[in-house]
Amino acid sequence: MKDIVKLTSDIISLDEMAKSVHDPKAGAISTFSGTTRDNFEDKEVKTLAYEAYGPMAEKSIYALITAARQRWDDLIHIAIAHKIGDCPVGETSVVIAISSGHRKQGLEAVHWMIDELKVQVPIWKKEVYVNGGPDGTDGGEVWKANNTQP
Amino acid sequence: MKDIVKLTSDIISLDEMAKSVHDPKAGAISTFSGTTRDNFEDKEVKTLAYEAYGPMAEKSIYALITAARQRWDDLIHIAIAHKIGDCPVGETSVVIAISSGHRKQGLEAVHWMIDELKVQVPIWKKEVYVNGGPDGTDGGEVWKANNTQP
Repeated sequence: MKDIVKLTSDIISLDEMAKSVHDPKAGAISTFSGTTRDNFEDKEVKTLAYEAYGPMAEKSIYALITAARQRWDDLIHIAIAHKIGDCPVGETSVVIAISSGHRKQGLEAVHWMIDELKVQVPIWKKEVYVNGGPDGTDGGEVWKANNTQP
Repeated sequence: MKDIVKLTSDIISLDEMAKSVHDPKAGAISTFSGTTRDNFEDKEVKTLAYEAYGPMAEKSIYALITAARQRWDDLIHIAIAHKIGDCPVGETSVVIAISSGHRKQGLEAVHWMIDELKVQVPIWKKEVYVNGGPDGTDGGEVWKANNTQP
């Protein structure tokens, strides 16, 4: 059983992540990709940027994987990649890929892991808006925790 | 909003399916891939084969998409591909890809759609075992409905 964790400033490939969890014993591959969308609460988003202290974020992601394996015994390989740095509209910020024997546990685990990752993993997100920030004073940039609305 | 339905004897690309639902308004892309696993109830599987009457299966998949859109209002594009014909171990038999504004609805919809697809869509599955069938009389081939265990 492989656990793959990657913090990267490169473009994240869903295909590559899904392939990294392939296994002849797997009947299911469940994935989630977070992508930068062009709007947030009626504001036009230009880009997002992510920052983290690498070793701490990686350790936190591995802890999440351990917790998932304790909850669900049918998970085979788990791969998680998170972008660090600029992530313009349409680009992938995070991918979770899980292979499992059957589909139910893999689907549940992907949903749980992205929710927990947003809450638990110390990665910070900067939103850069096209037209200024919410209070008009920050030059259109807002730093916030990663756990904004699902 | 695009609805993409494909029954195909070609290899199904998860990457292509995920890209087909990309949208600047999407913050989430959720996918499920079903793959042929090498075992079923202690028997070694050699290959699976899928058969369907195309127009009826397609109509049924479109009906499922309509039902999903009625249940969840945040879904953007929905793409579903299903393999027809031989699907050896490790190969993809079905992909569901959904983009959504936020993650919760997309993840729920993918889970619901694969469960409902297995139950509702008239696609038949033949399992070919390495060492004969379950009753030893069928030459190692078993036809069954697609809705076997999750």
